[in-house]
Amino acid sequence: MAQEIAEQPAAIAATLAALRPLRAQIAQLARNRQQILFVARGSSDNAAIYGRYLLEVHAGRTASMAAPSVATHYRRELDLTGALVVCISQSGQTEEIVQTQDWARHCGAATIAVTNVPGSPLAQAADLALLTLAGRERAVPATKTFTTQLAAMAVLATALAPDPRGLDADLDRVPAEVKKLIANRAGVHEAVTLLARTNEVLVNGRGLAYAAAVETALKLEETCLRPVRGLSYADLKHGPIAIVDPQLVSIVVAAQDGPMLEGLTELLGDLRSRGALTIGIGGDSGFAAAADVSVAGPDLPEMVAPIALVVAGQLVVEGLARALGLNPDAPRGLNKVTQTDADPSSEAGQ
Amino acid sequence: MAQEIAEQPAAIAATLAALRPLRAQIAQLARNRQQILFVARGSSDNAAIYGRYLLEVHAGRTASMAAPSVATHYRRELDLTGALVVCISQSGQTEEIVQTQDWARHCGAATIAVTNVPGSPLAQAADLALLTLAGRERAVPATKTFTTQLAAMAVLATALAPDPRGLDADLDRVPAEVKKLIANRAGVHEAVTLLARTNEVLVNGRGLAYAAAVETALKLEETCLRPVRGLSYADLKHGPIAIVDPQLVSIVVAAQDGPMLEGLTELLGDLRSRGALTIGIGGDSGFAAAADVSVAGPDLPEMVAPIALVVAGQLVVEGLARALGLNPDAPRGLNKVTQTDADPSSEAGQ
Repeated sequence: MAQEIAEQPAAIAATLAALRPLRAQIAQLARNRQQILFVARGSSDNAAIYGRYLLEVHAGRTASMAAPSVATHYRRELDLTGALVVCISQSGQTEEIVQTQDWARHCGAATIAVTNVPGSPLAQAADLALLTLAGRERAVPATKTFTTQLAAMAVLATALAPDPRGLDADLDRVPAEVKKLIANRAGVHEAVTLLARTNEVLVNGRGLAYAAAVETALKLEETCLRPVRGLSYADLKHGPIAIVDPQLVSIVVAAQDGPMLEGLTELLGDLRSRGALTIGIGGDSGFAAAADVSVAGPDLPEMVAPIALVVAGQLVVEGLARALGLNPDAPRGLNKVTQTDADPSSEAGQ
Repeated sequence: MAQEIAEQPAAIAATLAALRPLRAQIAQLARNRQQILFVARGSSDNAAIYGRYLLEVHAGRTASMAAPSVATHYRRELDLTGALVVCISQSGQTEEIVQTQDWARHCGAATIAVTNVPGSPLAQAADLALLTLAGRERAVPATKTFTTQLAAMAVLATALAPDPRGLDADLDRVPAEVKKLIANRAGVHEAVTLLARTNEVLVNGRGLAYAAAVETALKLEETCLRPVRGLSYADLKHGPIAIVDPQLVSIVVAAQDGPMLEGLTELLGDLRSRGALTIGIGGDSGFAAAADVSVAGPDLPEMVAPIALVVAGQLVVEGLARALGLNPDAPRGLNKVTQTDADPSSEAGQ
């Protein structure tokens, strides 16, 4: 896992370079389609969260999540002639996602597959495949396959935005910022020490950085074998905040700018006033000062910050797994290709 | 809370009777709009989950969730001229939802408000208000305001379906089935006994019943002050299942029929094989036999079963709160109208 974390600057740069030339094709596929729908599970679903916010906030295109079971279990046809459906799967062979893409095409959608495996069933059946260049990932927890999916989401957004130049220039700065985070590891040891003492962890974010928060939660849980929740702070305040207490360690993930920063900084204070210990990942100096422990984030604007913020989270997860005596590369009970959700009557499993 | 649980058969029947005459207006608003978007938080968001599945599976209309922060924080205009936006808020005065509805209208959407308060800001500003007839709800945890929201979702689906007759007839059977569950309380005491012994609870469902699962999780958490997660079993198998162990009690919610029943029954076996104790809510006899404790569900088809399944969950929550010496009517740290997420620059809070 540590080695694959370190490979990310190169993998992100290679993916951006490979996918940018496909922007005209992406724009062509989206023409006259008002709706963009994402289909994914697990880490890929977290990448889709970033994609949906970036498409709406940067590109001004309505984007949301599809429910795969409508295709795979209820077998209900919808009118998707106005939709571009983007299916994301690292392996390109998760049967549920492949089936849902087939269904979307049948319902009239244009389809884009985002996958790390050229020639995979998902890539072959799509109108256009956006192949991430992460190379083979050996550790079960996704790291470089995830950040390259985020890079693919950013290329998708630049392809559909009226003016992509600002985002495009910011994307060029991502690999070097990721490299810096990995070299410096600022605050990672302190965060690991705090997390090693607790069994109750909550991870919060909102807006664009929400994707980095829920991915950090998922990785913490599957790698360190503790129940961890990722929540939008808006959802947190709608009920679950009632259970915040001094046994809880709360991680809050924020970019250094943008309209979410103020609320996420206040959240740190709110959590501390309820007795929780807090870890801030990213943010600005005020955000860092409001947390018990601060893990450095990137010097990047909010639109592209999540690609690097999640790397800061990976460093914490990998360090915690080792501190707990666990093997971060092969967590108990998980396989690299998840096959759980396919149509039960299908014969096409692997 | 117990009293308001008992008021639900009448409240659901009254809401169905009041909203059915509005179906022609609903259909008119949705004409030539290909996309239905829900805006909600907390319990209302769980009602929207039922609405989105029912609209897709029963009515064949594409439906998904909007991200309110695109409106309230990023202030990004989208082209919603092809969208019907349905905002759900019990109080009709949660500022975030009111602001997002205003934004949606400004972006060209037709708007429907689902609220329990006539004359509330949300109801007044919508193209059409679907007023639930739950009456005043005194307990903080939503019960009758939630099931009447589900009834409103069902009326919405019948209004937009090519042939609503089957669903409509099934809806008429819901109040009596809810009444029967409340009178019999079959399995509730046994479930409470099991839950009182643990601090780790996971609630699972999928498809239409997923809404009842996540609402049961939210109510358990906010009323009984324990961290509880609600997960689709597809998402559970994509990582979090690694943390299932003998300390965990897992609740699985299922209808007695439909394409999800087989997978949810297998899930009970999977969870037990990992040492977890299981509570099945609903399902058929095979499902009940696969669980350590079975709580009776309704004799209703999957499309309408969630309205009654969540009542079975409420009975467990209310019983558990009392068993733990907590007051189910006023959980620590929560208010009836949640005001957390509004545009920070707005002066219109209450």
